[in-house]
Amino acid sequence: MAEAFTYQFPLNETSRAYLRIEQLLLRCHQAMQHINEQSCLSYFAALFDLLELLERADVRQDLIKDLEVQQKELARWATYPNVDLEALAKLEAANQHCLTNLRSQNRLANCLKSDKFLSGIRQRFSIPGGNCCFDLPQLYHWMNLPAEKCLGDMKNWLRQLDILAGAIAQLMHLIRDGKPFQRVIARKGFYQASAENLQLLRISCAPEQTVFPTVSGNKHRFTIRFMQHTDSGTAATENDIEFLLSAS
Amino acid sequence: MAEAFTYQFPLNETSRAYLRIEQLLLRCHQAMQHINEQSCLSYFAALFDLLELLERADVRQDLIKDLEVQQKELARWATYPNVDLEALAKLEAANQHCLTNLRSQNRLANCLKSDKFLSGIRQRFSIPGGNCCFDLPQLYHWMNLPAEKCLGDMKNWLRQLDILAGAIAQLMHLIRDGKPFQRVIARKGFYQASAENLQLLRISCAPEQTVFPTVSGNKHRFTIRFMQHTDSGTAATENDIEFLLSAS
Repeated sequence: MAEAFTYQFPLNETSRAYLRIEQLLLRCHQAMQHINEQSCLSYFAALFDLLELLERADVRQDLIKDLEVQQKELARWATYPNVDLEALAKLEAANQHCLTNLRSQNRLANCLKSDKFLSGIRQRFSIPGGNCCFDLPQLYHWMNLPAEKCLGDMKNWLRQLDILAGAIAQLMHLIRDGKPFQRVIARKGFYQASAENLQLLRISCAPEQTVFPTVSGNKHRFTIRFMQHTDSGTAATENDIEFLLSAS
Repeated sequence: MAEAFTYQFPLNETSRAYLRIEQLLLRCHQAMQHINEQSCLSYFAALFDLLELLERADVRQDLIKDLEVQQKELARWATYPNVDLEALAKLEAANQHCLTNLRSQNRLANCLKSDKFLSGIRQRFSIPGGNCCFDLPQLYHWMNLPAEKCLGDMKNWLRQLDILAGAIAQLMHLIRDGKPFQRVIARKGFYQASAENLQLLRISCAPEQTVFPTVSGNKHRFTIRFMQHTDSGTAATENDIEFLLSAS
């Protein structure tokens, strides 16, 4: 795991939700790479967290709004000189495809919520240590079916979230794309800049660095403070820290 | 995963807690076999569930009580003819070792609860999708350290639970040992017997069976009912089911 690691920090509530969803979807996919008891439990834990997030916020409506903003942005790009109009048309078509899909669904993940097997085991996952064999014999029976059967079911469940996954991927691609990393220095571990019109910070640190970034901010400014592990917890570093920053 | 699978059902509250702890410790160990982001998150989720269980119930006191009962039981065995007294003495010594260890600690897992790194990340694990990179940059920094460093830390934390793990392993060994599996038949998927002095049922099913057991019971009787997955959820089977049963 010794590569440069990119930390991502959302600067508003919707980006925060998108990043969570993106990470939970990634965990489901990672869990499907090797089917065993541990990975199956990780899969369900991530899937149920996803369902919980989707129930709490109207992610579908937020995605539609944000993709519409991006669509207008793309149209604005088309008026600039030297723009690759073909690439732009592709992006606009992909955006439109996501919007059409989102508008065609009333609620994301409805099928998963009504799935008998999933709803029979879901509640137990929120109880500490609550997914033991005696709590959920039906789950352990399922986990002992041939791996192909398990994988097939896992893919099927995840497929119900394809529209969500596609829209999040498209939106995050548009947000991240075209915002290259720039080398900056946090003097005495501290960096501050304007947060106007920003949604996402990406901070890439060299693996040999013993510090990690924390971010605080409001609509107007964001602050990055580099911290280090100490014997008594964590503390702000006093060193100058060179890092790569992409602000979208 | 297509081997005969053994379901375990506790018949009282303490066995229930012991099985949960046993499973959570197993998950921690499984997570340490391949160090990656997914396995690290599984490790912490299991570890924090363990801490939660240990805070809720006085597991230490329960273990002392149950090991003392087993110690008397072992002494009773020594009066039987044809007993392997050497093996018995070893069991008694192991039991005594666990008891001495348990009595020497005021609270299990105290070191883990006061660990700055762990307590800094623990709370986030109970929030759905709450262990994202931006929630816990210090955790993601740690996960990107060299795998040997992560593994070393994981082993160190788990070592704080050695006394607990040793006592649970010893007790569950004594409970399970000497109770061989017997082939029985659940007529029309239903099996009932006396639960007097029982703590644990183990039910082993052939992998090709499409049914799984559920258990209900009280102090006097336990009931095993075999269920199957149906399109509308699960339903009791009407078939005779042959299975292996060990009642401890």
